[in-house]
Amino acid sequence: MSSQLLMSDFETDLARPPAVTWTVQAVKQVSFDVTVARDVLNPDNPALVRAGATGSGRQRRFVVVDAAVDRLYGGRLRAYLDHHGVDHHVHVVEVDEERKTVHTALDIVAHIDEFGIDRRREPVIAIGGGVLLDIVGFVAGTYRRHTPFVRVPTTLIGLVDAGIGVKTGVNFGTHKNRLGTYEAPAIALLDRSFLATVDDRHISNGLAEILKIALIKDRSLFEVLESHGARLIEERLQGHTAEGEHAAREVLRRAVHGMLEELQPNLWEEKLERLVDYGHSFSPSVEMRALPALLHGEAVNVDMALTTLLAWARDMVSTQERDRVFAVMRALRLPIWHPVCSLDLLIRALLDTVRHRDGQQRLPLPVGIGTAAFVNDLTELELEHAASLLRQFGEGR
Amino acid sequence: MSSQLLMSDFETDLARPPAVTWTVQAVKQVSFDVTVARDVLNPDNPALVRAGATGSGRQRRFVVVDAAVDRLYGGRLRAYLDHHGVDHHVHVVEVDEERKTVHTALDIVAHIDEFGIDRRREPVIAIGGGVLLDIVGFVAGTYRRHTPFVRVPTTLIGLVDAGIGVKTGVNFGTHKNRLGTYEAPAIALLDRSFLATVDDRHISNGLAEILKIALIKDRSLFEVLESHGARLIEERLQGHTAEGEHAAREVLRRAVHGMLEELQPNLWEEKLERLVDYGHSFSPSVEMRALPALLHGEAVNVDMALTTLLAWARDMVSTQERDRVFAVMRALRLPIWHPVCSLDLLIRALLDTVRHRDGQQRLPLPVGIGTAAFVNDLTELELEHAASLLRQFGEGR
Repeated sequence: MSSQLLMSDFETDLARPPAVTWTVQAVKQVSFDVTVARDVLNPDNPALVRAGATGSGRQRRFVVVDAAVDRLYGGRLRAYLDHHGVDHHVHVVEVDEERKTVHTALDIVAHIDEFGIDRRREPVIAIGGGVLLDIVGFVAGTYRRHTPFVRVPTTLIGLVDAGIGVKTGVNFGTHKNRLGTYEAPAIALLDRSFLATVDDRHISNGLAEILKIALIKDRSLFEVLESHGARLIEERLQGHTAEGEHAAREVLRRAVHGMLEELQPNLWEEKLERLVDYGHSFSPSVEMRALPALLHGEAVNVDMALTTLLAWARDMVSTQERDRVFAVMRALRLPIWHPVCSLDLLIRALLDTVRHRDGQQRLPLPVGIGTAAFVNDLTELELEHAASLLRQFGEGR
Repeated sequence: MSSQLLMSDFETDLARPPAVTWTVQAVKQVSFDVTVARDVLNPDNPALVRAGATGSGRQRRFVVVDAAVDRLYGGRLRAYLDHHGVDHHVHVVEVDEERKTVHTALDIVAHIDEFGIDRRREPVIAIGGGVLLDIVGFVAGTYRRHTPFVRVPTTLIGLVDAGIGVKTGVNFGTHKNRLGTYEAPAIALLDRSFLATVDDRHISNGLAEILKIALIKDRSLFEVLESHGARLIEERLQGHTAEGEHAAREVLRRAVHGMLEELQPNLWEEKLERLVDYGHSFSPSVEMRALPALLHGEAVNVDMALTTLLAWARDMVSTQERDRVFAVMRALRLPIWHPVCSLDLLIRALLDTVRHRDGQQRLPLPVGIGTAAFVNDLTELELEHAASLLRQFGEGR
């Protein structure tokens, strides 16, 4: 972290005056907390009003929520802020993939301008699903070149995946997240109380990303899913029974821990071999093609089912392990197949992914349950066999 | 740069289950070159085609230029790219402060999408003035969350200030640079050949930022401006005489060096006491109020004239030093006064700046010639005296 400026003089190879080069070097320290905090809208819980706050005196907060959150929690949210004497504006946004646009982001910017916030001391608070968090993160990442913000995910996929990283984005044209930033939040508050109002299918959707972490790096997490998968959906991770409470806590803690362990050393995605890309090699194309039939986690699960078979065919996964994985997928009510998965689509999906990964497959495949390895030599023939077998599995053998 | 993930369990003060916090910590290394490169459009000079390039094989480049650059250099630019076998698209943008918008940025994004670039290996090249570099930097900073780009400033203010840092931005509503990023370029190529086609007033405009660096930290640079100011304008830093060549080289080298020395340890503006803010305490309001009468550097010079008098009244600058500074300002054909500078405007300008600097003045004032200090206790009375004296100076005593 030296602050000495490097300068070098050298003769160019042209018949010209000596050239000069300065090398500017700097180091940016990033640090943020991801905190489990139950019931953040309970006035007795100071976590939300303290989140990202610095200094003292009267607090002001600009809060962005999605329409579903406003409908279910808007009253409690405003009462919470009033209780803590926070001068606030709650901005409600209708969001979905189609409205995840620059236009929606600029509308938020205009409202922040109107409300007026201190650029360093008054964090923007985002409460909602992954799409909302992505948009607000994009605004915070660019508003005055950076404004602190607080992530409060309200869906399971947000709690374990979209809500705890640093990626932000909006769609542009036909491209997902074509514009975005890497922007660490001031803090992410993980409150599973919000899951009480999430429907079963969206609980399963989040469990797919949890299963991903289990398969690539956490056998114990897999075992919790294996023993308690159905109960987790049934109780929506609210812990209505002692067993359910224990399972919910374990699952969230292990999933978040595993995800952050993978993200931390590669926060800006300089390394293209990412274990957390497991389930995300074929699924982007599958999800886009099937839209809106498959949720993100459902498409990820189809990808994991396919790659489990690819690994099994290579003897990286035993038959018994394969069957355990498929049993858990069924218990979590996740699809393992979708009719759009033609061999042709899968081949093109892989080509897209290779382009995205700078010319190589860098394909994470499971090794047993709880570890993984990267392969670069998957053949079309292997893909054909696995796809055909998966279709039989998917159609009930 | 440890990659160990910190986790702590603790009991909350609420009667709730134990809470968990993970602290994600990461370090981002930033390094970029700022290189003096004469005549970058000469096919014999490989600097531009090599800039930011990685890997081998056929090269593709998306180049953004402003309309003035296209008119004057578009033919040579295309011939250069053809000569080096680069598959290219030159995108021409009409820019000024009013068109420095998200809309202009999105138009560039759409054209990049159409051309298609490899997200890591094919840097976007921006050739133009400060406004163009700011817009393209914003696009590069957000396109796929980061795309490498090359800065080639073509104005003097770009060469020593706007073109060599990491700030990017577009205006929104009535706010300058309301949206932006901190985004290091792959490289900045400084080619003063472009100044041959810049008019005298814009040369003076750039010399104001050079004078700023001289006043706060480089007495030798001040002396070069004192001896050769008129000649630099006359020759547009092209070195038509041996003396002029020497002066141009010294001035650019010292100004860039001084600027980068200040930027490097504070690349993300975490420290609000910035010497390079000298001349930028009152000038933002003056510039906006006088628009379009004053160029940026001209408004900065009015600010420096005012603050020189403030420092003189505090005995931080002697009468002789004060007169030398004003003599150089005249030689550089820079205004020291503008009728919009009412006491009322100056007071409000300072209040704005205090808000921007988190509640304190943090006002850099010169100490003699070539050093500076920060003050936090400037009074309205001092400002009134200095402003009234400056008005007399400005109106010819």
